[in-house]
Amino acid sequence: MRILSGIQPSGALHIGNYFGALRQFIDLQRENDAYYFVADYHALTSVRDADQLRAYTFDVMVTMLSLGLDPDRATLFVQSDVPETTELAWLLTTVTPMGWLQKCVSYKDKVEQGLSAEHGLFAYPVLQAADILLYDADLVPVGQDQKQHLEITRDIAERFNQVFGGGKEVFRLPKPHILESVAVVPGLDGRKMSKSYGNTIEIFDEPAAIKKKVKRIVTDSTPVEAPKNPETDSLYHLFKLFAAPDELAEVERRYREGGIGYGEVKTRLADAMIARFAPARERRAEWLAHPGRVEEVRAAAAERARATARRVLDRARRACGVG
Amino acid sequence: MRILSGIQPSGALHIGNYFGALRQFIDLQRENDAYYFVADYHALTSVRDADQLRAYTFDVMVTMLSLGLDPDRATLFVQSDVPETTELAWLLTTVTPMGWLQKCVSYKDKVEQGLSAEHGLFAYPVLQAADILLYDADLVPVGQDQKQHLEITRDIAERFNQVFGGGKEVFRLPKPHILESVAVVPGLDGRKMSKSYGNTIEIFDEPAAIKKKVKRIVTDSTPVEAPKNPETDSLYHLFKLFAAPDELAEVERRYREGGIGYGEVKTRLADAMIARFAPARERRAEWLAHPGRVEEVRAAAAERARATARRVLDRARRACGVG
Repeated sequence: MRILSGIQPSGALHIGNYFGALRQFIDLQRENDAYYFVADYHALTSVRDADQLRAYTFDVMVTMLSLGLDPDRATLFVQSDVPETTELAWLLTTVTPMGWLQKCVSYKDKVEQGLSAEHGLFAYPVLQAADILLYDADLVPVGQDQKQHLEITRDIAERFNQVFGGGKEVFRLPKPHILESVAVVPGLDGRKMSKSYGNTIEIFDEPAAIKKKVKRIVTDSTPVEAPKNPETDSLYHLFKLFAAPDELAEVERRYREGGIGYGEVKTRLADAMIARFAPARERRAEWLAHPGRVEEVRAAAAERARATARRVLDRARRACGVG
Repeated sequence: MRILSGIQPSGALHIGNYFGALRQFIDLQRENDAYYFVADYHALTSVRDADQLRAYTFDVMVTMLSLGLDPDRATLFVQSDVPETTELAWLLTTVTPMGWLQKCVSYKDKVEQGLSAEHGLFAYPVLQAADILLYDADLVPVGQDQKQHLEITRDIAERFNQVFGGGKEVFRLPKPHILESVAVVPGLDGRKMSKSYGNTIEIFDEPAAIKKKVKRIVTDSTPVEAPKNPETDSLYHLFKLFAAPDELAEVERRYREGGIGYGEVKTRLADAMIARFAPARERRAEWLAHPGRVEEVRAAAAERARATARRVLDRARRACGVG
């Protein structure tokens, strides 16, 4: 199966991103033909500094490689290395009814959050459709919140097939691969971990920074000896993501019986977190010491991605009569 | 001066197009570095048949060449031969406020005319901005009705310079070159000549078809001997566009004095029209007999246009940090 997904280069990736998507992307490379791209065209709607965008783009590449993405197995490319994306987006835009974009929740949400309403945000689902259709993707891993956009992609593809394909299938219709819904990863303040809340722990924070941040995790004031409900404690939820099963069982028992303090759990959590990412951290140091190798991975992936993209784009161009 | 304009390939061009734009485009090639493109990406919003679009695109090329466009002097290219246009359009779209597009008259008009509201129509001014900015155009020949779009192009360019250019000028700001406002060219029914009214005479209609259509021009029932007001007669307005000055003076005098019938004016108009386009018609037959030559012109122009486009696009990509 050809599987495809994108990652926005808008800052260091955190453990919410890791459990919600990246870890699963890495897993999916084993049994699929995985295409992952760094969505820099999309990021332009929010990142307004060229040097920063270049740095973020590089960082996403390095993060994925460090976490175990195998560049010989998966195609990890940068969106703007395949400008065919934007051409396909224009072809698709000519058959996309305004109404479909107007009802898109993510646009409405962003506007309501006070982000200035630029056309890039509004047109975003069309570029996303191009991202997906350009590679004949079979499956698109998405969170529940992205399901609507994939439906629009399918609708646009069907409309194009109908308007310009004369019944023939110009585009393959992708199916959603709904990502394993892990327990929402809580942030330092107990709300969902999210850059916009400023409550994140980054995957590649230094061990000292991880310890410091974990100490800041908000807990209640139940004393050490009192029984505690692990289900309502976000510290416990985080710990659960990192702990080995027997350690988790012990901690859970002591929560319910009483006799464990939050300080101890925090120390254990920080240690588990640091241990979990230690191999990736070593690989990362290796990649960072050889940035030329990252560029080689990028160039080879771009070449592979463009070859696929070119075939699909030519099909679309022929179908509508341009070029 | 670099001058740039586009022509939509949406059917055979008529004498309204000729006097309103094409004739002036040909004239402008003498003292300018003229870039003209066949706007096939734009046409996709209305032409939904690939073979038809390819035929229309070829026809615009041949029409311009037949009317005297000199391919060694001007660059006559096809929009989709320069896909850099769509990439620049995406970069521009990320800094274009929705409000600027919402107020565009041409979108509102088309929707009011009952054309289904597709995103391509809405996003059209952004693609148009890319068309213009991609070639560092100094001047854009526009009719009064297109002035608003050129203003949006300038606004988008300034916004991009400000958001991503850090004060540096990424794009050259184009100025409008308002086309000589010829008397509106009346159609067969007296309304403005327009494909949407079905009242056109095509530039390359066969002589017999021209005669037949001219006979259908609507006139009033004033008898031959009665004086007539030439100012209110659309037949006279058409004749004025084609007649030699002395012939025009004679006809005008006989309108005012009485003694000329509409039949006679129609015969003279048809003859003048046929004579006017006779050399172009011959050149056209020549081009049509050698379609390979048209393709050569197209390929050479595409190469020239892309070289220019590439430089400007690279400037824009560097400024915002993609690629």
